[in-house]
Amino acid sequence: MAEAYQKEFFNVTFPAEYVAHVEINRPEKMNAFKEVMWQNLNQIFNTLSTDPSVRSIILSGAGPRAFTAGLDVNAASTSGPLASSKTPDPARTANAIRRHVLDFQACISSIEKCEKPVICIIHGIAYGLALDMSLACDIRISTQDTKFSVKEVDIGIAADIGTLSRLPHAVGNASWVKDVALSARIFGSEEALRVGLVSNVYKDKTEAVAEGIKLASLIASKSPVAVLGTKELLNYSRDRPVEEGLRYTAVWNMAMLQTEDVPRAMGSGIKKTVPKFSKL
Amino acid sequence: MAEAYQKEFFNVTFPAEYVAHVEINRPEKMNAFKEVMWQNLNQIFNTLSTDPSVRSIILSGAGPRAFTAGLDVNAASTSGPLASSKTPDPARTANAIRRHVLDFQACISSIEKCEKPVICIIHGIAYGLALDMSLACDIRISTQDTKFSVKEVDIGIAADIGTLSRLPHAVGNASWVKDVALSARIFGSEEALRVGLVSNVYKDKTEAVAEGIKLASLIASKSPVAVLGTKELLNYSRDRPVEEGLRYTAVWNMAMLQTEDVPRAMGSGIKKTVPKFSKL
Amino acid sequence: MAEAYQKEFFNVTFPAEYVAHVEINRPEKMNAFKEVMWQNLNQIFNTLSTDPSVRSIILSGAGPRAFTAGLDVNAASTSGPLASSKTPDPARTANAIRRHVLDFQACISSIEKCEKPVICIIHGIAYGLALDMSLACDIRISTQDTKFSVKEVDIGIAADIGTLSRLPHAVGNASWVKDVALSARIFGSEEALRVGLVSNVYKDKTEAVAEGIKLASLIASKSPVAVLGTKELLNYSRDRPVEEGLRYTAVWNMAMLQTEDVPRAMGSGIKKTVPKFSKL
Amino acid sequence: MAEAYQKEFFNVTFPAEYVAHVEINRPEKMNAFKEVMWQNLNQIFNTLSTDPSVRSIILSGAGPRAFTAGLDVNAASTSGPLASSKTPDPARTANAIRRHVLDFQACISSIEKCEKPVICIIHGIAYGLALDMSLACDIRISTQDTKFSVKEVDIGIAADIGTLSRLPHAVGNASWVKDVALSARIFGSEEALRVGLVSNVYKDKTEAVAEGIKLASLIASKSPVAVLGTKELLNYSRDRPVEEGLRYTAVWNMAMLQTEDVPRAMGSGIKKTVPKFSKL
Amino acid sequence: MAEAYQKEFFNVTFPAEYVAHVEINRPEKMNAFKEVMWQNLNQIFNTLSTDPSVRSIILSGAGPRAFTAGLDVNAASTSGPLASSKTPDPARTANAIRRHVLDFQACISSIEKCEKPVICIIHGIAYGLALDMSLACDIRISTQDTKFSVKEVDIGIAADIGTLSRLPHAVGNASWVKDVALSARIFGSEEALRVGLVSNVYKDKTEAVAEGIKLASLIASKSPVAVLGTKELLNYSRDRPVEEGLRYTAVWNMAMLQTEDVPRAMGSGIKKTVPKFSKL
Amino acid sequence: MAEAYQKEFFNVTFPAEYVAHVEINRPEKMNAFKEVMWQNLNQIFNTLSTDPSVRSIILSGAGPRAFTAGLDVNAASTSGPLASSKTPDPARTANAIRRHVLDFQACISSIEKCEKPVICIIHGIAYGLALDMSLACDIRISTQDTKFSVKEVDIGIAADIGTLSRLPHAVGNASWVKDVALSARIFGSEEALRVGLVSNVYKDKTEAVAEGIKLASLIASKSPVAVLGTKELLNYSRDRPVEEGLRYTAVWNMAMLQTEDVPRAMGSGIKKTVPKFSKL
Repeated sequence: MAEAYQKEFFNVTFPAEYVAHVEINRPEKMNAFKEVMWQNLNQIFNTLSTDPSVRSIILSGAGPRAFTAGLDVNAASTSGPLASSKTPDPARTANAIRRHVLDFQACISSIEKCEKPVICIIHGIAYGLALDMSLACDIRISTQDTKFSVKEVDIGIAADIGTLSRLPHAVGNASWVKDVALSARIFGSEEALRVGLVSNVYKDKTEAVAEGIKLASLIASKSPVAVLGTKELLNYSRDRPVEEGLRYTAVWNMAMLQTEDVPRAMGSGIKKTVPKFSKL
Repeated sequence: MAEAYQKEFFNVTFPAEYVAHVEINRPEKMNAFKEVMWQNLNQIFNTLSTDPSVRSIILSGAGPRAFTAGLDVNAASTSGPLASSKTPDPARTANAIRRHVLDFQACISSIEKCEKPVICIIHGIAYGLALDMSLACDIRISTQDTKFSVKEVDIGIAADIGTLSRLPHAVGNASWVKDVALSARIFGSEEALRVGLVSNVYKDKTEAVAEGIKLASLIASKSPVAVLGTKELLNYSRDRPVEEGLRYTAVWNMAMLQTEDVPRAMGSGIKKTVPKFSKL
Repeated sequence: MAEAYQKEFFNVTFPAEYVAHVEINRPEKMNAFKEVMWQNLNQIFNTLSTDPSVRSIILSGAGPRAFTAGLDVNAASTSGPLASSKTPDPARTANAIRRHVLDFQACISSIEKCEKPVICIIHGIAYGLALDMSLACDIRISTQDTKFSVKEVDIGIAADIGTLSRLPHAVGNASWVKDVALSARIFGSEEALRVGLVSNVYKDKTEAVAEGIKLASLIASKSPVAVLGTKELLNYSRDRPVEEGLRYTAVWNMAMLQTEDVPRAMGSGIKKTVPKFSKL
Repeated sequence: MAEAYQKEFFNVTFPAEYVAHVEINRPEKMNAFKEVMWQNLNQIFNTLSTDPSVRSIILSGAGPRAFTAGLDVNAASTSGPLASSKTPDPARTANAIRRHVLDFQACISSIEKCEKPVICIIHGIAYGLALDMSLACDIRISTQDTKFSVKEVDIGIAADIGTLSRLPHAVGNASWVKDVALSARIFGSEEALRVGLVSNVYKDKTEAVAEGIKLASLIASKSPVAVLGTKELLNYSRDRPVEEGLRYTAVWNMAMLQTEDVPRAMGSGIKKTVPKFSKL
Repeated sequence: MAEAYQKEFFNVTFPAEYVAHVEINRPEKMNAFKEVMWQNLNQIFNTLSTDPSVRSIILSGAGPRAFTAGLDVNAASTSGPLASSKTPDPARTANAIRRHVLDFQACISSIEKCEKPVICIIHGIAYGLALDMSLACDIRISTQDTKFSVKEVDIGIAADIGTLSRLPHAVGNASWVKDVALSARIFGSEEALRVGLVSNVYKDKTEAVAEGIKLASLIASKSPVAVLGTKELLNYSRDRPVEEGLRYTAVWNMAMLQTEDVPRAMGSGIKKTVPKFSKL
Repeated sequence: MAEAYQKEFFNVTFPAEYVAHVEINRPEKMNAFKEVMWQNLNQIFNTLSTDPSVRSIILSGAGPRAFTAGLDVNAASTSGPLASSKTPDPARTANAIRRHVLDFQACISSIEKCEKPVICIIHGIAYGLALDMSLACDIRISTQDTKFSVKEVDIGIAADIGTLSRLPHAVGNASWVKDVALSARIFGSEEALRVGLVSNVYKDKTEAVAEGIKLASLIASKSPVAVLGTKELLNYSRDRPVEEGLRYTAVWNMAMLQTEDVPRAMGSGIKKTVPKFSKL
């Protein structure tokens, strides 16, 4: 197994054909993040992105209590943007913070940039960074006991690793977005489903992981060329006018429609067989 | 009746004053599309766009079984982007595909560009191209038996005629968008209503068509100047920042607020009469 | 109290610490707007924006019957864009209209530009301008008896003070947006909640105002630096690609993460005390 | 020869291998345009765009006196946007104008959309529409006697067929752009070269046409795949941030770098032979 | 004369029909700016924008020595963003600075927003703010003795009132832009003309003012509707893709082409008379 | 010295205080690039970006003959996007190409992303990649003997590492951009200066390097906070509307105007001393 998958605070397993499972593994701290962890996350997803034996990914937290409680505040107070060794000059401190925030953002965005779809299984405590990370994933499912919070205002900051940039594009209730982001109040899965933050809620973590693997396997059974394009084009179009999306799509597909996967998939459809696709 | 409305695979009728009904008419093939059909669609909607006796439009499929089953795969395998006579050079093939996709996109976008509002009545089977087309319409209503599927990954392609560009801007659950687009799973009207893909669900096709005509008639009774502007400004603003929308609106209305429809509509409102508006 | 708060048609009160309540006060006309009122609104929100003793705001209408019935049509027929003294030249009239619309838009946008979060309590009649105004607010809550209507097409115009620019970005059902904007039909709170126009519905105005103050107080108890940033970054990101949002966020926070509020908030979190923050 | 090339007011000839020459042919009226002419222009360039025996194009005016004197004002006063049969309602007239302007713009933009590079040879009188048209071309060269004018303000209008949209992106002196567009003053080739409106000035029309054909032939000798991509990517990037240009380029080239033209061109480079490329 | 034109540090005169001359009037300090001056500038240009007896404007500095030496550094050290009474909290100081900078920017941008064209006559010393201001003007002309400098890095700041945002869109040499902005070196009119910062250089201030008035008079003799549109559409298009410019232009002109100025201008053109246009 | 600076094909030296000199060092091959070289370039500029003892950078080629002859075509035919081991499936080959091109682009863009200004000294042969690289630099100067060529069409490709995305934003003659990019013709420094590709031309490489170091030293003597901001804000504004540039600038400077460099620079200005600035 790739060295990039051997990390102290992550388990990477392969529960089904072409499916990887990334598990945040610091359950004794409710999977709270310190700096090394987001750097590891970055390495793991960059490697998964081009690993030809992986076609879809699920992400969850180890242990029964939390997906993640967010930033490890104790650790953050000694390193990272909140603890940037303050220089006497606010401008120089500012630049150190900027470098740090951009680096942290890039680590989280590696999930969005990953060529393979990522399904986030949100369970138990899901605060702060939990939102930032899950919003960089493609599909979000949760459990009946999930406790969500856009927690950042409670530590005096405007969330800067992705939640405030991605949330307005992810759900269909702008009033609710402001409500939870400004108040940091805790909300549950029923509310998350109603406003569109998650697309399914399951009884508990066990069921959610099982269903996550099932969905990941279904996606992994499709043409990898079609799946890659679908993720890329949906991400591209989310951020741009329809006209721009159409133009980019036409250019993307001028190579991709030449794939052998089209006749294979069509042939299997007609013959009611299961198509086999080459590695990507 | 305009020649553009006389097409082998479409019925165009006028069920109420100022209301046109476009019906996809190939029921024996579940209204599956071959190339001539989307070119006809284009001609029909371009003509409706400037037909002064039409103020709103409904679109449905003939027969009880399907709105449309999507692309006619047999036909597509002999013409169109999936069958572009492959040249020996991938780049030359690519350019032929690009031309074809851009042309196909333009045909579907003629619905969005049409100056009059289009209400899509989605019933029975609604796969692949059904989504592309209905997302180019202004209003989507469906029936209890509708079976939706973003079907394209099942034939090895990333949908390229509009679904991936318009869906993220049409519904309020980004996780659900990825779920259905990556898995091609079939979903029903209840789910479509919950995530915001349709705005109403009716018992069956008969009721949906009747309600569609009723809504189309209501819209057709309003000032055509106001209706034209409302469609244009909502489409414009969907794709742009609020500031841009406001500026364009001010410029649009510097001509449109001079219309005689304003005093007519206001006068009728005060006198509780039904206003009459000149043709546009 | 600031002179800007003493207006004939508005009450400005301070029902809780750091919370302002702006009330439209023309109940005998169902709080319908004439030109002086939107200019006053502008002055009030510009002043609140930098008033250090205000950290959050609620907006409602006086009296039991209406949030606002919208534009005072009688007044509008004698002044404003609909009554611009028509010059004999359509181009010169057009420019007069443009100036007027841009000015009117700027008044309504002062709510969005206000540095403090604004919670809109929508109750009773809420027509036309009611939507324009509430969509410029951050959070929208309503009551069981609210009657909403995007009323403008009924007077022959495409809404130009913000509804058509902001509504597509505020709710997650594009089909519904077109439905209500093109038909001007009246809809209620249940529907508003389902499509995401409001984030909560309360029994009646009394309860809604009480809950609004409660939420405003909760927000006012947070770090003003974090709250300011959260509003700014969410508004910025609504209108732009995720990449742009992330970059702007990093630059915003290079100053804001240096705030003393972070250690204060963290310290209070650990000590389970209520943090006190300096005025902004 | 394609029927699209047989037009009353245009000559289409093929002066060199793979090179087409489009000549505006109404010299007795200084090549002034009436409506049928821009519609013909549209048809000609749409046909050239996909004509496999054409790889580059030059555009000039017939006769010694003018490239074109612009709109035929007499004709324009009886048809077209300036003569839209005025309806009694300014809003309905406005919509008729909008349809007309959009159609006219599309005709001129067919030059920019043409897949093959277009070299514009500007000579003699070049007023109004001359600028609109030449700015839609890829390369502009002129003669020592060229008299340019952004003439539109002199007939009471802001140029609406392209000059005001393309000029700010074509030259490197924003002050000069405003100067000539606001004053309608006549300027010559020396000034045009200095500010970057043209890239070369020749002695007279004969020399300019000869040099135009020479440059067109040079371009036509290159890989058609590389030339198509270079035009497309430069046009795309002119209008967008560098980051967007880079991303689109990578997607464009994922098909185009697979072309057989690369080894052919490289091989010819090494062997110092002239490469032959298949038709596109 | 409007009260807005009576300011201590500005002279507003009317040297020709429909032409206003705004003169910065603090020659004993080389026209250096203190805060009250940019607020006055704002009021003057907002008033000129809608003054029907003004159709074009020139801007220059009083006295022989300087257009303006830029910010009055002594004054700036006691008020303004550089002297924001520093609070103990960097975040609160930051917000005070942001408010101040946005306000200052808005004052300078009032020149760009002014409906009438503004010709900037740059002479003598032209440092820092001189660039910010002149870049917000439409046309820039200078004199042989002008000494330009993007001076801000020399006082430790990145220019924030407009130069860094407008300069890359105003001239055609990106390398030169970085050169002068990073080095703060002084350059003259010959260089400014070569890179496209100015469109004409005159012998001295007297000649430049005379030529400025001549050009302003020429512009003032054109249709005010056409001039207004030309400024608006060029500013709009500078900042947007060509497609966006074309669309906005079509909408702008649907009102503006209805003007009586078109037949008046055309008629005068045919009859070789001087057209008279109504006030705007 | 940092390990990142020890590369086989690059020399990194420090010819003046705070100034780094990066030299492409493969003179026997006219500094042609193979893959390892652009990866090294990336590492060098990423390291320089945050090296506190570097404040400005010059980039040149070793030896008298060439800045760089571009891609090493022999090497490119065995690795890289042009030699991607072709899979039997055009779509899978396409994705391999895309990954490669994005990676290559990122290496070149590291120059633009570098926090410190980079001055490119272009001399002798400067083909293909020479343009891509120099356009990612901030300032371009050249020598009388420089031979430039946008060479890519000559090997059958549309340039994909940056030239086509950056050139339209770098120079002020769109016609010339198309001319040289479509024809691949060689041009010299006089022409480059006239169209705005370079900002200065020097006699020979020796003089150009000396002048480059002089300019780099001048920039290095300024406040590093001001220089960082000036580069960042100019790059940001190049790609965006003026309004966006102004807003970003205000947010950037809310931290940066708090720097101690402002009083230091102002104080030195008054006292005519040379200011000293802390490391960034």
